[in-house]
Amino acid sequence: MSKKILIVGGVACGGKTAARLMRIDPEAEVIMLEKGEYLSYAGCGLPYYVGGVVNEYKDLLSTAIGVVRDENYFRNVKHVEVKTKNMATKIDREKKEVTALDLASGEEKVFPYDKLVLATGASPVKPPIPGADLNRVFTLWTMPDALGMRAAVDSGKIKKAVVVGAGLIGMEVVEALHGRGIEVSVVDFLSHPLPALVDNEFGNRVNCVLKCKGINFYGGEKVLEIMGENSCVTGVKTDKREIEADMILMAIGVRPNTILAKEAGLELGESGAIAVNSRMRTSDPNIYAGGDCTVGRHIVTGKPCWQPMGSTANRQGRVIADNISGKETSFKGVQSTAIMKLFEYTVGKTGLTEEQAAENGFDAVSITVVDPDKPHFMPQGGIVMIKLVADRWTRKVLGAQSFGTGKIDKRLDVLVGAVSGGLTIDDLADLDIAYTPPFTTALDPVTHAANALKNKMDGLLRTYSATQLKEKMERREEVVLVDLRTPPEIEAHGQLPYDEVVNIPLGKFWEKAPALPLDKEIVTYCKISVRGWDAYSILKRLGFKKIALLEGGILGWPFEKK
Amino acid sequence: MSKKILIVGGVACGGKTAARLMRIDPEAEVIMLEKGEYLSYAGCGLPYYVGGVVNEYKDLLSTAIGVVRDENYFRNVKHVEVKTKNMATKIDREKKEVTALDLASGEEKVFPYDKLVLATGASPVKPPIPGADLNRVFTLWTMPDALGMRAAVDSGKIKKAVVVGAGLIGMEVVEALHGRGIEVSVVDFLSHPLPALVDNEFGNRVNCVLKCKGINFYGGEKVLEIMGENSCVTGVKTDKREIEADMILMAIGVRPNTILAKEAGLELGESGAIAVNSRMRTSDPNIYAGGDCTVGRHIVTGKPCWQPMGSTANRQGRVIADNISGKETSFKGVQSTAIMKLFEYTVGKTGLTEEQAAENGFDAVSITVVDPDKPHFMPQGGIVMIKLVADRWTRKVLGAQSFGTGKIDKRLDVLVGAVSGGLTIDDLADLDIAYTPPFTTALDPVTHAANALKNKMDGLLRTYSATQLKEKMERREEVVLVDLRTPPEIEAHGQLPYDEVVNIPLGKFWEKAPALPLDKEIVTYCKISVRGWDAYSILKRLGFKKIALLEGGILGWPFEKK
Repeated sequence: MSKKILIVGGVACGGKTAARLMRIDPEAEVIMLEKGEYLSYAGCGLPYYVGGVVNEYKDLLSTAIGVVRDENYFRNVKHVEVKTKNMATKIDREKKEVTALDLASGEEKVFPYDKLVLATGASPVKPPIPGADLNRVFTLWTMPDALGMRAAVDSGKIKKAVVVGAGLIGMEVVEALHGRGIEVSVVDFLSHPLPALVDNEFGNRVNCVLKCKGINFYGGEKVLEIMGENSCVTGVKTDKREIEADMILMAIGVRPNTILAKEAGLELGESGAIAVNSRMRTSDPNIYAGGDCTVGRHIVTGKPCWQPMGSTANRQGRVIADNISGKETSFKGVQSTAIMKLFEYTVGKTGLTEEQAAENGFDAVSITVVDPDKPHFMPQGGIVMIKLVADRWTRKVLGAQSFGTGKIDKRLDVLVGAVSGGLTIDDLADLDIAYTPPFTTALDPVTHAANALKNKMDGLLRTYSATQLKEKMERREEVVLVDLRTPPEIEAHGQLPYDEVVNIPLGKFWEKAPALPLDKEIVTYCKISVRGWDAYSILKRLGFKKIALLEGGILGWPFEKK
Repeated sequence: MSKKILIVGGVACGGKTAARLMRIDPEAEVIMLEKGEYLSYAGCGLPYYVGGVVNEYKDLLSTAIGVVRDENYFRNVKHVEVKTKNMATKIDREKKEVTALDLASGEEKVFPYDKLVLATGASPVKPPIPGADLNRVFTLWTMPDALGMRAAVDSGKIKKAVVVGAGLIGMEVVEALHGRGIEVSVVDFLSHPLPALVDNEFGNRVNCVLKCKGINFYGGEKVLEIMGENSCVTGVKTDKREIEADMILMAIGVRPNTILAKEAGLELGESGAIAVNSRMRTSDPNIYAGGDCTVGRHIVTGKPCWQPMGSTANRQGRVIADNISGKETSFKGVQSTAIMKLFEYTVGKTGLTEEQAAENGFDAVSITVVDPDKPHFMPQGGIVMIKLVADRWTRKVLGAQSFGTGKIDKRLDVLVGAVSGGLTIDDLADLDIAYTPPFTTALDPVTHAANALKNKMDGLLRTYSATQLKEKMERREEVVLVDLRTPPEIEAHGQLPYDEVVNIPLGKFWEKAPALPLDKEIVTYCKISVRGWDAYSILKRLGFKKIALLEGGILGWPFEKK
């Protein structure tokens, strides 16, 4: 008894569904329609092709041993019939048929199915502004997009570029183009880079990286027009300035491709994406959908969450194949994990930011810690910054952001597990994390973050985030800022830009602390606020009442310094 | 109302307890006795000092900004009174007093306490064999040990060394000495390196690393005598051979230091270590203990587990301080996490091995997978090998081992969280792990391991581990071994040492598979057994019944190849 499975879309979710079906369901007869030319390519690798880290575009289309995943590969290896350049145009749910247009021949063909899988993906948003159709105005979503951008860069004619939209793709391209010697500017409607990923404070940290690389970030600016001459782009006009450019990347977001589903009367959900249940089944029991065209469920909030990511699409493809073959697997949900490399830095998040947690009704408490990646006596250690968010009542980890030159991906993945597993900050602090000096400190930064948040939630420690302290200073509240560092450290890492700073190296603090004013609030800090905490404890012993610690110390300070 | 806290032992747990008490308990008056000269040093850094990765021993004694953690530091910063070279000799539990011998002056002193903390650590086992007292026979546990070894190495007189005991410390020293140009041999009573850490198969992989570095490993050999001339070591005599050496490291294990506790009548537990409850309290409610001298609880088996590790000691110090100051924190337990760097490789484990799981009554199922660290199109990717063990009934992750040139520490820490959080393999497969090509593949090796084990447990896949296949071949069972690789790959990575190998590159498998014998068992594999799985699926479609996959493929094969 064979069953006909028709898959519409052949990149991430579609390809995965086909491959998995072939592996686990000997009865499945799979046909896959793809409107484009390229199959199963590594979409997340496109910025690295543009930047030349990946030299040959075929590498993104190939298996690890260099076999291109084309129609022959799918036929000979996966036993899947693939029709590229075939665009599905209509679903007849009654007859269980899909009509598709062969883009090469112009012919229409009808494909019957027992089960249909929609993996139609998403498409970049193109704003209706003047000049959007000029030459060298790109989006970067598909392989042809990448080929076009790479050719433009390789031509040597691009001296200046503007990236519109400071999201993941935009920022990856910033690094790629900067690496090719191009002067890059970034414009975003929102005030800081990676606005969907990190909060304002972490966004400021990312902005410092851009600044230090000589990349202009114009936040809170709206692009009004793309300027050009002789049908070729010459610059961007925002509501505040004009920026010269030989090339533009429009990376302001993507939208799910749902026309086919919508016209077939399938239920849509949040963000207009196709609604599915945990089996990845649509409102029609014979139709499954997965990847960027569908909306998932957030495992922390329980609310719909659209997360167009390659890794999500791959996992969903497995679930679809399992259910079609009669194995009732569920897709657990998404948790907004995202990560990117930005020069020598890495930035990422999982779960909820503090703001998102509050919006979702949690009594959210957070802390930011800064730690060395490895013990100071080992070579080549970076810095790891973690902002950990937990619920005051259940103590469960709700989310985290991480940034730095250390192994951010590692700490983030541990935090992914903590959020997904419903771990409390106490569980997290207890984790028997693998310790040896080449890889981490005796108490890993994740452990430190959990311990610090425990201290804060248990009333042992009062803290201010950098933003809270900045606002406090702007309100001109009476504060003494006590810096516990030595003079050479101040020289090396700068100082908070306030006159209220008093410098008392920790070794002299017991002696000098009694002279501090009892009537003013005292905020302690150092390089990463570990000595700041020693000083805080000493003040507590000495009977000072109004004391607080600056989270993350001077290395965590994302604003101007003096 | 002050309270006198007396701490015996000032390295990991003792120092941490003191520091934490000072931070959270304004009433605590802390005195710390340490029999040695050095305080709060990074014991796990000692092998790196011997090898010269850490240049100055003071770096192991200092804070990140170079302040040595000596008696002055503890007094001036932590407000803790420390007595080094003071050895506690007796506890009077009635009077709540500890007698200590001042090793410098020979005086005895009595220290009263309200709460006593025992952090007496462990000591290396010195076997009673002839020659154990010769010059240049070392143990490596304390700072003086490390200073002695480093001086010997720096003298330039050491050409050959023998490390007795292939545990973590022994193997770290192997790398250290090899890096200093010394010819190193390793002898262990057990058959493979790191026997307490990994099973036989992973041990064989570690052995391959040693071999490839020109280091002799003599497994299953007993050291009978240390040979010498003029009171200086000249070699080691085992039950099988004599090995020349100018230096010996005895690293056959450590034992908890419990004389003080035992003589005071405190309850001891497994391994003779001090028994404590989850508050780290001993059988005397006024005495706490932590670190290497105590026995913890294994979070998977619930049984006592002695885990002498610096990270454990640090976490326990916090718990002790919390409880002394009235905050009822618990120590959750240990899970046998361990990790080590070995040249360009990393090897680690957490939770139970398959054998340990079976011994503890679990119906354990395992799988070994081999994966690239990053997508093949990105530069500088290593290899990640994971053996994942789960319980067939609850599907919970019981443990994992990992090995390779990729980011093993990262995958291990995710698995630490999985074991600790009680995640099932389904939860693990669903983890929204952070994906971007610079850091991992679209489905991370951890995800792959979980998916593969799901396939196996759900009956979709039959596999043999390398060991199982080797045993099968040794039993001369009728098997056809189908290698799906291309000839250049076989050239590059070698071949299984069996005549039963048939090579059919995957692209031709649909065509050639029908000619395979239906009556013999067919075992498929390739470089990492992903194509092996494609072939397995094709055989299933073609109606073959007796089929299996070789876990991990040729890269995972830890035995001889041809």
